[in-house]
Order: sequence, then C-alpha cells, then structure tokens
Amino acid sequence: MKQIAFLMVAVATVAGVVASTAPAAGHADEEAAPIFGVKIPSGYRDWSLVSVAHEAGNLNDFRAILGNDVAIKAYREGKLPFPDGTILVRLAWSYVPSEENNKVFGRDQSFVAGPPINVQLMVKDSRKYSATGGWGFGQFKDGKPADEAVHKTCFPCHEHVIARDFVFTHYTP
Amino acid sequence: MKQIAFLMVAVATVAGVVASTAPAAGHADEEAAPIFGVKIPSGYRDWSLVSVAHEAGNLNDFRAILGNDVAIKAYREGKLPFPDGTILVRLAWSYVPSEENNKVFGRDQSFVAGPPINVQLMVKDSRKYSATGGWGFGQFKDGKPADEAVHKTCFPCHEHVIARDFVFTHYTP
Repeated sequence: MKQIAFLMVAVATVAGVVASTAPAAGHADEEAAPIFGVKIPSGYRDWSLVSVAHEAGNLNDFRAILGNDVAIKAYREGKLPFPDGTILVRLAWSYVPSEENNKVFGRDQSFVAGPPINVQLMVKDSRKYSATGGWGFGQFKDGKPADEAVHKTCFPCHEHVIARDFVFTHYTP
Repeated sequence: MKQIAFLMVAVATVAGVVASTAPAAGHADEEAAPIFGVKIPSGYRDWSLVSVAHEAGNLNDFRAILGNDVAIKAYREGKLPFPDGTILVRLAWSYVPSEENNKVFGRDQSFVAGPPINVQLMVKDSRKYSATGGWGFGQFKDGKPADEAVHKTCFPCHEHVIARDFVFTHYTP
C-alpha cells in the first residue's frame, strides 16, 4: 500500500512537470513510450535551444536539442547532475542538400534540415528512473512511440557518457 | 518637422519591439550595427528554433536560426511577407567533429557545434528599411557589430530569395 502511494505521488510529480511546460505550439500526444512511460510534453517545440549536431553515416541526420527551463538553467550554470524535472528533446530531420540555397551561392555548400525523422526525449526523475541513471527515455515518430526493443537500446548507449550525467550534448551559447 | 516626428515614432516602435522581447538570458548589447542601426535583442537566445543548417566550404559552420514570437507565428501560418516586428537571429558555430561522441559510437560520424563564429539578425520594418526589402540587417561577434563593408553585403545576397520575402530558412517542425 505504501509502495502504491509512493508510486502515485511519483507519477503525479512527473505529470505536473509535463503539464507545467505547456506554453504555445507542440502537440501533447497521449500515447506513452514503453518501459519508461515518457510522453511528449506540450509546447516542447518552443523550448530553448541547447545545441545542434549532425550524425553522418547510416543515420545521416540533422539534430537540434531543446531543453525545458530546468534543463537550460542547469546547462548555463554548469550544474551536474541535471536536477529532477529536467527534460531534453532531440529533434532529428533528414540531412539534405539545399538546391535553392546552392543556386544563390553558386556552389554546393548548403545542407539543411529536410523531413522530420523522429523525436527523442530524456526526462530526469532520479527515483522513478533509478535503474537507468535517473533518466526516462522516449522515442516518437509522428507522435507515436517506438516499440520496447528500441527503448531498450537508449540507456546502454547513454551509459557511456556517465561523466556528463548520461547526456551527450553540450550547451553552445 | 513632420519627418522628424515620424522618424521618432518609427524609432520608438522599433525600440519597443526590441524591449518587449527581453525574457531570460541573451545579453542586450548597446552597440548598433552600421547602416541599419540593428541591435542584439535581449533574450534572443531563448527564442524558438526555426531550423538548422550547415554551410560547408570556406564557411564550414553550423547554424541555428531562432525567431521571436512574431516570426514563429508567421512561419507556422505560412504567412508571407513577414509582418513588421519580425526578428530572426542566425547563430553560427564552427562545424567540428566530436571525438568524444565518435569514441562511443565506434566510428567517425558525429559533428557538433564548436566555438561561436558570429550572430546575424534580420529585423522587419517595412517603412524604415524600404530600400532593402523591408529588412534591417546586423552581424555581431562577441557582441560587437561588424563594419559597414560587411553590412553592405547582406541585402545583395538575400535579394535572390525575394520569393520568400528575402529569408533563406524554411521552418522545420
């Protein structure tokens, strides 16, 4: 009974964090990611930018990492580990050459973000997600979560960056 | 006299736009760009992301384009031309391989944003900047504006994308 009560408080806390991050756009999807129960938070598309990246090779994507207010404050203060309530969102798009830009520049130099690939989330709750470094993970495409097998691959990769509280991306001012 | 009054109203309007966009971080710099008088707006670093880009070749940079509320609303509604009050900020960083990421992935695939290169601004005021498509331009490095010669190169390049109201970047959801 005590355990159930604790669980309910924990769930309510996470729900509160998600609910409190709902300003403008970004569609709250009701379907939760397997294993972690992470949902897409409303308004995430208007969160502040942490940084950008390009993964070449098989992935060949363009990435932007956004963070909620808790995340951005921790980044700017150089605070590790990230506090509970931190949410990071990683958007990925296809990495494509821009023919219209290259025409203006007179050379093939411009690469832009093409169609969206997926959205990944990291939600910090050190008690709820104690088995995975305090982080819950979620991957979504068109608002639908990926399957359980995909979500089993998140932590084994992020585990390598334990020195940075399991977060790959550095903040770039 | 009438002209002076009009000019004062116009300046006050632009100043109001800049002043009203001042939430959290982002340091308001007092020095204005030559020709256009554009200043770095307070809090721009927390504005919503429009999209990202990579310019290869000599530039070899990573870019993120942010927009104020007026800009983001116009983008999402597909509204052209952008309304007065629109401000776009283009951040550029060095495009560098991430050795720490590549070590985890076991292959050379990861490129990230390195040291900042400069910040460019486009401010829409169709009357004040009628000679340059309604846009005022500004380029800053470490808060200091580039010289007049640099600012003379802005519009001749953006002029090519007149069909998109002189803005290169598309919004990517």
